[in-house]
Amino acid sequence: MLLGSSGSIGRSALSLVRHYPGLFRIESLAVNRNIKALGQQAEEFGPGRVFIGEDINKDKIKQSFPDTDVFSGERDLEEFIAGSTADIAISSISGFAGLMPTYYCIKNNIPKIGLANKESLVCAGRILMESAAENSITVIPVDSEHSTLFKLLSGHKPSDIKKIVLTASGGPFLTMSRKELKEVTVSQALNHPRWKMGRKISIDSATMVNKVLEVIEAHYLFGMPFEKIDIVIHPQSIVHSFIKTKSNTYFAELGPADMRIPIGNALFYPRDFENSIIEFDIWDAEPLVFEKPSPERFPILSYPSYVMDSANKQACNIAFNASNEEAVDAFLNGLIPFVRIEDVIFSTLDTAGEKDPASIEEVLEYDILFRQRAKKIIQGICKK
Amino acid sequence: MLLGSSGSIGRSALSLVRHYPGLFRIESLAVNRNIKALGQQAEEFGPGRVFIGEDINKDKIKQSFPDTDVFSGERDLEEFIAGSTADIAISSISGFAGLMPTYYCIKNNIPKIGLANKESLVCAGRILMESAAENSITVIPVDSEHSTLFKLLSGHKPSDIKKIVLTASGGPFLTMSRKELKEVTVSQALNHPRWKMGRKISIDSATMVNKVLEVIEAHYLFGMPFEKIDIVIHPQSIVHSFIKTKSNTYFAELGPADMRIPIGNALFYPRDFENSIIEFDIWDAEPLVFEKPSPERFPILSYPSYVMDSANKQACNIAFNASNEEAVDAFLNGLIPFVRIEDVIFSTLDTAGEKDPASIEEVLEYDILFRQRAKKIIQGICKK
Repeated sequence: MLLGSSGSIGRSALSLVRHYPGLFRIESLAVNRNIKALGQQAEEFGPGRVFIGEDINKDKIKQSFPDTDVFSGERDLEEFIAGSTADIAISSISGFAGLMPTYYCIKNNIPKIGLANKESLVCAGRILMESAAENSITVIPVDSEHSTLFKLLSGHKPSDIKKIVLTASGGPFLTMSRKELKEVTVSQALNHPRWKMGRKISIDSATMVNKVLEVIEAHYLFGMPFEKIDIVIHPQSIVHSFIKTKSNTYFAELGPADMRIPIGNALFYPRDFENSIIEFDIWDAEPLVFEKPSPERFPILSYPSYVMDSANKQACNIAFNASNEEAVDAFLNGLIPFVRIEDVIFSTLDTAGEKDPASIEEVLEYDILFRQRAKKIIQGICKK
Repeated sequence: MLLGSSGSIGRSALSLVRHYPGLFRIESLAVNRNIKALGQQAEEFGPGRVFIGEDINKDKIKQSFPDTDVFSGERDLEEFIAGSTADIAISSISGFAGLMPTYYCIKNNIPKIGLANKESLVCAGRILMESAAENSITVIPVDSEHSTLFKLLSGHKPSDIKKIVLTASGGPFLTMSRKELKEVTVSQALNHPRWKMGRKISIDSATMVNKVLEVIEAHYLFGMPFEKIDIVIHPQSIVHSFIKTKSNTYFAELGPADMRIPIGNALFYPRDFENSIIEFDIWDAEPLVFEKPSPERFPILSYPSYVMDSANKQACNIAFNASNEEAVDAFLNGLIPFVRIEDVIFSTLDTAGEKDPASIEEVLEYDILFRQRAKKIIQGICKK
């Protein structure tokens, strides 16, 4: 089952399925609203079931999906997922919208979840990981850093781990001064030097919010306290993460910046990804540079230490994510300048006095609440 | 039990024992002939037993070793080792002289061998590893590259390993032309840019013979065919080795160039080395460079592919090692120029038509034979 098949990760996943004929079968496909892409994919891969996020008139598109069960709209979502017989679900819907599909996959016992949607862990990490553990479901991260950490950590006793270290390319603005950052345009921000990615994650990379989301993701995924998670700037994106052990040495995985590798890792799990599609030799790599990130240039990196001691971590994380999604949207629509994205986040966080949510429904309520607050803050910025 | 306690590795091992009071106890110490150092070490660490390689008058030195059983000379060697009650032997005698002590440790069931002497594996790898397997003895390499590989390989299925890659700093002459290499002096060759080591291994690093010895060592230690072992030049000596898996990514361990780490790994094995003596942070590392080695500049690197298909690999390896030891000795004594070391090796190899040795005694005979041949070749060079 592939959730988000028209997106960047979704299309890469299908390219792998195409590359290994006979090895994988696409059981279900889901998109938000790109019906055209879904039609082409359904024709090529022949899933028995498709889902369209928008609530559409299913009769109208019937002839585009012969011999296929069509589901659509929020109403159909759980039925669509509960009826899946897939061995693995790749959850690659972008942003908060990926939460409920991920939740339903876990609730309905899909045995393996390849999780590319980091926002679902950010906003409901505790609930999702506890449910997964109860149902003996393996959550396999599909994020280059976490995919690597997932492998590295499996070879070491938890008590031997001193730190996990996420590498950050630094995005397109690594060498810009704070002043220069103020003038950044949308197209500059979308132009990531190392990774070809969707729009939202490209902006998140430019602001370094993506790295903060990844720290939170790692916190829930690996049960790792925030104080044991470090970030290191590594512009070449060859080392995807490190673990530092008691021997004061680092273990790393090195490979090209290509999302097909973490996707392949998930698809082949628990076997090793038999990569016959991407070549890589270590002597082809540029010199590898590692630098401590500058919190002055990217104040958003202080969020993990901000939230570390909070009694309402999960509520704060929802506020962080909701306000970021709203702020990125506002920036992409030309409403606020690039550097104000983090102002929107910090101002929204100032309002987050709520207790941690106890259920997935409460997570959804909180998300709506914090988005409303973030929108007000954005309006305030627009007026100035 | 510490074999070679007055050498570079031996002294580092003792510094670790000193650093972790109460954790380790020195049961036996052995030196070749540095009785003064042995006396000081015996006073500090109080071993019950000492061994001196040279055949000396034991009565004469009795007062230097109160309450200590003194062994000396080849005659006493096996008795000395067989009588040990140690949990681990660190075998850190330099060169071919380390073979028999290592062999006796295995034969006499010392449960763990921390093996810093690569020549014993080079010359008798098959015999030693088979005996170790029969006696359920763990051979833990004490060499930065192999110590790392030992850990990396333990986390992966053998069938998932495509390559193992040894890093080489390139030694002090990395950027020299072939012509410049001809003028190299002894003191230049002893001056390694990254590692502080004994004299013999420093010259071996400068000629790249050390890296060839390590390839052979890895071949026997990990049962890895030569064609799966690569070398990459990495002047910073931070990555100690790689394994490349089926996913076309590399796994690595990164740490400072400090032999106390592989020694600590062996002493603490099977637990993780609790390193409280050497600090290392990844952002302190210089940019890490990786290059394919040039076989034109270092023709000796062609040896693994030369020996790969030979029916008498082990005999060739003995010839390689014996001729190298003789040639290094001749260079250090000013008898031959630096670049002729490899000529001595290749000329001796040309004579190595013997079948593989079937016993440790035959290994010793072969070693004497090839040394005689190498000495003749050296004499020939001196005459010119």
